[in-house]
Amino acid sequence: MKIDSFFSNNIKKALKNNPPGEWMPALPEECIRLSSGYPDPVLVPSQQIKEAVAKLIEEEQDLPLHYLGSPRIDLLKQQIQKRLHQRGMKVYERELLITSGACQALDLIARVIIDEESVVAVEAPTYMEALEIFQNYTKQIINIPVDENGLQTSLLEEVLKERTQKGLPLPRILYTIPTAQNPTGTTMDLERRKHLLKLAGEYDFLILEDDAYGELSFGDSPIPLKAIDTEGRVLHVGSLSKVVAPGMRIGWVAGSEEFITAFAWFKKDLDHPFAQASVASYLEEIDFEERLNMLKEIYSKKCDTLIDALQIYFPESVTWYMPSGGYFVWVHIPGLDTSELLVRSLVKGVSFIPGEYFFLKPQDGTEYFRLSFCYESEAEIIEGIKRLGQLLTERLKVNSSLLK
Amino acid sequence: MKIDSFFSNNIKKALKNNPPGEWMPALPEECIRLSSGYPDPVLVPSQQIKEAVAKLIEEEQDLPLHYLGSPRIDLLKQQIQKRLHQRGMKVYERELLITSGACQALDLIARVIIDEESVVAVEAPTYMEALEIFQNYTKQIINIPVDENGLQTSLLEEVLKERTQKGLPLPRILYTIPTAQNPTGTTMDLERRKHLLKLAGEYDFLILEDDAYGELSFGDSPIPLKAIDTEGRVLHVGSLSKVVAPGMRIGWVAGSEEFITAFAWFKKDLDHPFAQASVASYLEEIDFEERLNMLKEIYSKKCDTLIDALQIYFPESVTWYMPSGGYFVWVHIPGLDTSELLVRSLVKGVSFIPGEYFFLKPQDGTEYFRLSFCYESEAEIIEGIKRLGQLLTERLKVNSSLLK
Repeated sequence: MKIDSFFSNNIKKALKNNPPGEWMPALPEECIRLSSGYPDPVLVPSQQIKEAVAKLIEEEQDLPLHYLGSPRIDLLKQQIQKRLHQRGMKVYERELLITSGACQALDLIARVIIDEESVVAVEAPTYMEALEIFQNYTKQIINIPVDENGLQTSLLEEVLKERTQKGLPLPRILYTIPTAQNPTGTTMDLERRKHLLKLAGEYDFLILEDDAYGELSFGDSPIPLKAIDTEGRVLHVGSLSKVVAPGMRIGWVAGSEEFITAFAWFKKDLDHPFAQASVASYLEEIDFEERLNMLKEIYSKKCDTLIDALQIYFPESVTWYMPSGGYFVWVHIPGLDTSELLVRSLVKGVSFIPGEYFFLKPQDGTEYFRLSFCYESEAEIIEGIKRLGQLLTERLKVNSSLLK
Repeated sequence: MKIDSFFSNNIKKALKNNPPGEWMPALPEECIRLSSGYPDPVLVPSQQIKEAVAKLIEEEQDLPLHYLGSPRIDLLKQQIQKRLHQRGMKVYERELLITSGACQALDLIARVIIDEESVVAVEAPTYMEALEIFQNYTKQIINIPVDENGLQTSLLEEVLKERTQKGLPLPRILYTIPTAQNPTGTTMDLERRKHLLKLAGEYDFLILEDDAYGELSFGDSPIPLKAIDTEGRVLHVGSLSKVVAPGMRIGWVAGSEEFITAFAWFKKDLDHPFAQASVASYLEEIDFEERLNMLKEIYSKKCDTLIDALQIYFPESVTWYMPSGGYFVWVHIPGLDTSELLVRSLVKGVSFIPGEYFFLKPQDGTEYFRLSFCYESEAEIIEGIKRLGQLLTERLKVNSSLLK
């Protein structure tokens, strides 16, 4: 029996286009994880979630353990609506779908909107999981560079004009992480946000706003694209993964009712009543603003610690963007292949994510890597950067002696 | 902005083929739910799950709240492998994927295997959610009747022969619930199981074995198709929804490694570490065999109660299959439209699911309905059947007087 003869045509294409591959090499037992996109273990409210589950079951008994029936599922939706509202996004109940993390939202959006004829625009660099999801649906992906002020909308406009002139198909949807972007840590300024929405109207495309870090700006919180969208072009995706706990898998998508109805239809009953009710029960007990302020204070301090360490231990030629929030610092090391560097770095007990994972064309990321300042303690961050700095100095010396 | 212009071509077809619709009418506040596929609330181990979560978090702290990291996710896989093994299915770790309930497994299988050119064979009647999922991928669905001994494989063989003679495409996959079928409650006998596997080899199709009720046979447990499959044609889907709690959303698919790799690839990181670890922690504490015996004893008694009540209160012309396990009784009421009946039944405070939901062609189910004996207490079951019996007697009288 030939197994792959049973794969559907679309799936055969997707597997050819983007074959299942090994993700990062295995990390050694003792490793300072500057690769990790996990929250700080100390800040994960495990005790409070334990108590929230106990309260939930004492109050509702079996209700949250059925397919449907826990009133806290509706409550969770209201809690999220309230947060969106506070940030300028008026979203009705029928315009919001709770998903199993932001990734399920991205996959549902891709499934409903993208087929092999669709052009998708993404940022360069961008979130690797999103890139993989889009590649499951189309090969036609174009990328637009990000700088210290976010997506370069002037370059996007050039691409759109050029494609129009050449009669090439225009993007159906543009994927952006406008605030504290993954992996660059930079934020799109207001002028570019307005420009992007104007272009979406002119060239008739949708905007997928991934707001996973939207509440983790170290300075003033920028206004979400969804809040200034007057045409219903923005699908706003959010998540509690970075501000509560990723393991609860609570994400959402907010958008026009017709879209949400279609997403819900293809989601079927893949709801998680127990997880949703547990999180609603947890959110009832806490002051969310207070928690956010605490997270921002701690993460911003850890970010400063990492940046200070970079300044002390990294060679002069290395540069980085100053993160405006979120979890990550994006580092440029001219002349070094960071995937090759990772193998040596793991021997020294430090991990990072090589830049190649964040680009449509992996070679565009060769000289970059992403560091996380969230997961490890400040002492470990300093130790990790110290070891990484020594390795970089060493490798850059070897390179320059080879060039002589 | 025209929203549906942004839907992909496949999705436009799927929405046209199978538009999002209202499910059952809303049930009145006080209603005896003979419609419900929920387990008996008394048998949902809510206290034990509460304790399992407490133990999990005391022992692992933040680990089950990250994307990955709880050792209990591997443990859950081993616990499921062990259960499969005990039932004659040797499944390696790489041949098993944990899913978010059986429905996610069905959707992943459909996504990877079915496209608009694929023919899918289903049982008639069959599980409505599965039918909806398949209809999202193809219009080409054929159905094969079920009787008191399960899928009528001789009729399947006729269809296969006829399609071969006529040069019509053969099914790529056949979906069956061989044990305690939903909605008929009947079980495929061993001879038919062997015949089905033989046909799958001869006509080169896959078998999707939905085993949601496989451990809830009231008599001897029949051997799963997967256990007697020598060619790797069976994708075996299971779930803890009916034997632990649906709200935890723990399902799985077992099959050849190449399939499982593809399913895992398209599932992305839609895992539920917290739910999976909580269930593993719960399973550690219980004797699963003992729990199954308890469930079978209670559900079999409730089934007898419902059948006895049918014999007492239902008119003579009404017939049903004697369930061999599971949750449901399938009832035939010659000459009545059960969807029309439901409206009147809800007024009397009793719900059931009209037969039309379980058929590709709804009109095939007009004279049938599905009753559940699991959710309600024995007293409520008797009261519900009594009310339903009065209504049936009344409606059949009206019908026969109209015919005079």
